Amino acid sequence: MAYKQLTEEIVVDYLKSLDSMKKIFSSFDDLNVKEVGDGNLNYVYIISNNKDPEETVVLKQAVPFLRVVGESWPLDIERMNFEVAALKKEYEICPGLVPEVYHADSEMSLVIMQNLNKHTIVRGEMNKGIRFPKMPDHVSTFLARMVFFTSDWGMAGKTEKWPDHDTAAKKEMVKQFINEDLCNLTENFIFSYPFYPSETNSYPPGISEADKKSIQEDGELKQKVALLRYKFMNNAEVLLHGDLHTGSIMANQDESYVIDPEFAFYGPAGFDIGLLLGNMLLAYIGQMYWQKKLGNDPADYRRWVLSAVKEIWEGFAEKYDKLWQEHQKKNPDPMWDFPGGDDAFTELRRTEISRIFHDTAGFAGTVMIRRTLGLAKVSDIASIDDPDSRAEADKMALAIGKKLILQAETMKSVQEMITIAQEVSPL
Amino acid sequence: MAYKQLTEEIVVDYLKSLDSMKKIFSSFDDLNVKEVGDGNLNYVYIISNNKDPEETVVLKQAVPFLRVVGESWPLDIERMNFEVAALKKEYEICPGLVPEVYHADSEMSLVIMQNLNKHTIVRGEMNKGIRFPKMPDHVSTFLARMVFFTSDWGMAGKTEKWPDHDTAAKKEMVKQFINEDLCNLTENFIFSYPFYPSETNSYPPGISEADKKSIQEDGELKQKVALLRYKFMNNAEVLLHGDLHTGSIMANQDESYVIDPEFAFYGPAGFDIGLLLGNMLLAYIGQMYWQKKLGNDPADYRRWVLSAVKEIWEGFAEKYDKLWQEHQKKNPDPMWDFPGGDDAFTELRRTEISRIFHDTAGFAGTVMIRRTLGLAKVSDIASIDDPDSRAEADKMALAIGKKLILQAETMKSVQEMITIAQEVSPL
Repeated sequence: MAYKQLTEEIVVDYLKSLDSMKKIFSSFDDLNVKEVGDGNLNYVYIISNNKDPEETVVLKQAVPFLRVVGESWPLDIERMNFEVAALKKEYEICPGLVPEVYHADSEMSLVIMQNLNKHTIVRGEMNKGIRFPKMPDHVSTFLARMVFFTSDWGMAGKTEKWPDHDTAAKKEMVKQFINEDLCNLTENFIFSYPFYPSETNSYPPGISEADKKSIQEDGELKQKVALLRYKFMNNAEVLLHGDLHTGSIMANQDESYVIDPEFAFYGPAGFDIGLLLGNMLLAYIGQMYWQKKLGNDPADYRRWVLSAVKEIWEGFAEKYDKLWQEHQKKNPDPMWDFPGGDDAFTELRRTEISRIFHDTAGFAGTVMIRRTLGLAKVSDIASIDDPDSRAEADKMALAIGKKLILQAETMKSVQEMITIAQEVSPL
Repeated sequence: MAYKQLTEEIVVDYLKSLDSMKKIFSSFDDLNVKEVGDGNLNYVYIISNNKDPEETVVLKQAVPFLRVVGESWPLDIERMNFEVAALKKEYEICPGLVPEVYHADSEMSLVIMQNLNKHTIVRGEMNKGIRFPKMPDHVSTFLARMVFFTSDWGMAGKTEKWPDHDTAAKKEMVKQFINEDLCNLTENFIFSYPFYPSETNSYPPGISEADKKSIQEDGELKQKVALLRYKFMNNAEVLLHGDLHTGSIMANQDESYVIDPEFAFYGPAGFDIGLLLGNMLLAYIGQMYWQKKLGNDPADYRRWVLSAVKEIWEGFAEKYDKLWQEHQKKNPDPMWDFPGGDDAFTELRRTEISRIFHDTAGFAGTVMIRRTLGLAKVSDIASIDDPDSRAEADKMALAIGKKLILQAETMKSVQEMITIAQEVSPL
């Protein structure tokens, strides 16, 4: 049906009209509707049956402007198509790590899906000192499977037309996921504005002119950021979530779900991992404050955050490598069928993982800087209400981000990322 | 109109039906029609008015199979849409270096365009010892303008929506030029088959098992080729011609035209240049034989070929750099508006040109190997009728190609490419 912005009042009528909802709700007489969106781009309704709260769905509808700015910033509501297509592809590749889609309406720019009512957004919980011991394993599985199975390494198939190597299916995906609007958002708000005196920036109160200049007037740093931006714009390697941070993961002690892939597009393999690790390092910084406030020794929790950083990267690398080996066994690329071929294939995987890691480190650094100088903040740091602690945290984020970007291309292991974080912000 | 394969007999009736042809031909009573296609994918008709031979056009029609193999190898005739779209875009960016399109019919899978009747295919003429002194300048202009103006560096615009940096227009081009069929051809016939014992290969008579193994069983080489293939498949940087060799350039002593862009797609910036330089180096090898046959000292002509290699690369690099500087003056990227910004911008350009050169060298080496072991040969070498000279030339092509691929990433200048060629095949 034609686009119409829903409200709490009319959501139930809309649900009633859908056959797919009759499988979820035993009755529509006593549904509870609550708008809970805290993102920038959408309204999110949780609908549950008061008679049986297990009968519940989430409805997410895109609105035709950037919510955080207001109606003056128009955005194409077709972006919901990207989210739905990405959710379905992610669910196919990573069932149990992504909410199930029950219904999607392209014209209404909305999706109705599994309500993760036993899970909470990881970022907020981390600020309360909650650990998610299984999250690194789950998320690294999500990352490894998505990166491998949507890449040419994982998708190049054997077809009748091209018995050895057919890449048409992947190119169809690239075409489907050309996501101009939201890529422009990222290119501007992550890779551009924070690095010069854009009016859109929002400088934290404790940041000095010298702090800003340490980023915005460092030629080597900006050259590297411009090249990371170029990779983001050009390297159509894998289907990315596009906005993977601790606010896009809902988890509990047993399960983790990756949500909100409206920024999905084909981009560089290290981008999602980099964004996530950058956000974890922002949490590492913020926990100096939050753990003290909770009356804990910050070192304990912060050590867990760093171990999670390590586990996410190493889990990704190990699983990705294994998926590729399994794939090669099932669909042998004749390139490696020669004496010495195993070694060459091993070296190829090693080279690729190392290249992805360099990009990961660079993207991690970029996101730490953008969350400090740019428009959109993270609560890990921006909610700190003690001015000195906030300023210290912001400065640390800039310093770690900068080092990650400058050193990304020569880094050999995730331990080097962790060492940089610990040097700037000791445990 | 619906697809119908033209023949010499019915071409004139087709032309008569087109308004656009009434502007070219003063009458249709005495037209001469000749099929001249020698490519793999199309029929090409030259039509001229016997009463005034300056009234002339070329009509190119795609056929639904790979012509060199026959009807058993089906190919999508929609590929003509890519050729027409690319010709128009190239003409817009490089008028005078690309034939003008007079008429295109998507359903008939054909294009009618400027007949380059004062120009000849460069490859064949080179084998006759003809030099094209202005060709390197023309072709490097074509390459620099195409690479710059279709890249994000040249296309990222300032729009109302994104006043600093809008990349939507380039992404639309990427989408339009997703060219699955012909990219699969390249990925298989250039980057895959020649590097393992594929049945499609056609090994030259003088090539030994050891020669084949020096390519097909070298793990380091194959790993680098797999990564070049990956770049070809993933790095959607610039609108490429996709098949730029000395057989895709028509020239005379004053003008040069780049023809046949049916392989056009968005790919790595160094691909076209690499293919062309690889083909020039194959000519350099072949000229050992052809110049002797013409009774000349081969060193003279071969020196010209190497100077052309140098001039094409250096001309490209210089012009590309200049276009970028001019663009930055007209559309300043605020990233470089700070004290020291000029230096950072200069360093960025230097880094990018160096990266493009590394890719160029790798692609050049790959194409030299594929033209030796793979299905499609070049007449520069494959027409050599003396078995010993032919074998020597084929071995040299493999040796130079291999060195280029292995050393690509560490090469600093085009002189290193030339030195490799001269070491393997002395003047």
